[in-house]
Amino acid sequence: MAFAGYCYYRRAEIRAMAAEPAGERGASASKKQRPPLDHTSMFETPTAMSVQAIGVIRSPYKERFGTPRQATVWEQSIGNAPQDGEIHLNGDPRYEHALRGLDGFDYCWVICWMHLNTGWNPLVTPPRGPRTKQGIFATRAPHRPNPISLSALKITSVDYKNRIVHVKGLDLLDGTPILDIKPYVPYADAFPNAAAGWLDNIEDKKGPDYLGYSPPPPHLRQKEDKPETEGVSGAEERT
Amino acid sequence: MAFAGYCYYRRAEIRAMAAEPAGERGASASKKQRPPLDHTSMFETPTAMSVQAIGVIRSPYKERFGTPRQATVWEQSIGNAPQDGEIHLNGDPRYEHALRGLDGFDYCWVICWMHLNTGWNPLVTPPRGPRTKQGIFATRAPHRPNPISLSALKITSVDYKNRIVHVKGLDLLDGTPILDIKPYVPYADAFPNAAAGWLDNIEDKKGPDYLGYSPPPPHLRQKEDKPETEGVSGAEERT
Repeated sequence: MAFAGYCYYRRAEIRAMAAEPAGERGASASKKQRPPLDHTSMFETPTAMSVQAIGVIRSPYKERFGTPRQATVWEQSIGNAPQDGEIHLNGDPRYEHALRGLDGFDYCWVICWMHLNTGWNPLVTPPRGPRTKQGIFATRAPHRPNPISLSALKITSVDYKNRIVHVKGLDLLDGTPILDIKPYVPYADAFPNAAAGWLDNIEDKKGPDYLGYSPPPPHLRQKEDKPETEGVSGAEERT
Repeated sequence: MAFAGYCYYRRAEIRAMAAEPAGERGASASKKQRPPLDHTSMFETPTAMSVQAIGVIRSPYKERFGTPRQATVWEQSIGNAPQDGEIHLNGDPRYEHALRGLDGFDYCWVICWMHLNTGWNPLVTPPRGPRTKQGIFATRAPHRPNPISLSALKITSVDYKNRIVHVKGLDLLDGTPILDIKPYVPYADAFPNAAAGWLDNIEDKKGPDYLGYSPPPPHLRQKEDKPETEGVSGAEERT
């Protein structure tokens, strides 16, 4: 859960739309009067929407290799430890106070647009566990109909003056545009015992992925590693 | 956590883009060759993106009143209990298999576009607790720069043939367009002990909101309630 049973139009707009003829609202219509009961059927569901970046991710990750598949997973990632990252809000003067209060939260949700991804498949092979294809909406694979990412990031500090949120541990590439930031609220977001489908059948959930390329890139290669002569297929997605 | 350190361009595209001149890649360039180390600086961060609805929410909630502010909160909501809702994927034939495996998960994230919301303010007054304004990015208020919602919904069943996910308990209006569905993965998403800033100072986190209108609408009014003669301000946002 997380979001909100949202409240859509402000009352002034409702009145302006005149869902009912003004006459029927009667002379008693006051500022306190509530809008009509059924709003939703008055409006068509849109099929395409335009989103604006509110900021940008600054991250040590410049490419797929060595970037964690989730912010909590750093096996096979650069430095083998969570890295520092930054959320930079853009220069819109309205953002000056928009972060107020965020430093009281341990985590924030960061919703991004994975702008370097193109294309998607309805079925993907997860990078761990048995080689069974799963539907894209049953995985966290990054190639999706809308390449929207969702990451709960640990907040280390908030620089209100410069509109920067410092985070520890992230799974996002440098330069990724940000669509929204929300506080992490355990009563709506935390279900530690929730069943996780095909993932529950994998013993080491934070364990290593199959590597899509061979040999692995130098910064991930152990000194004792011998480069493989035959690589595995690179077709699987992170999940 | 949640999403993925994403893998952006597929290798064929990388090759086509010719980040390095083809000659430098040499005759040994093979299908297994990995892309160059720094991709991100090759691309500008986009400022505006276009999203497509993948489906629509079917919900008993037709207006703000009686709609839970979070899917886990049903005090003051219609029926005073979690309601049944449906996630309908649209008719794109590629979605036929895209849900495969989702019924093994207890919860899914549903990311929507709150299409009936317009406008936003950098500071909002939460509907509970002390009347202290918080930055919009430190609240889950629905009026946001991009009106994107985030809800973890309990899956009751998946109707693969008709591409419908049945859920129990939701905080979304009927007709809301859906942007993405992701499985809930506790190792990346569940932080039950995370501090929640200003919300931690409110004793009853799932307790009642201040009502923005007075008298409250009939379906929320208790029989013994006397309509208030003076209402409170309706300016606060749900959080």
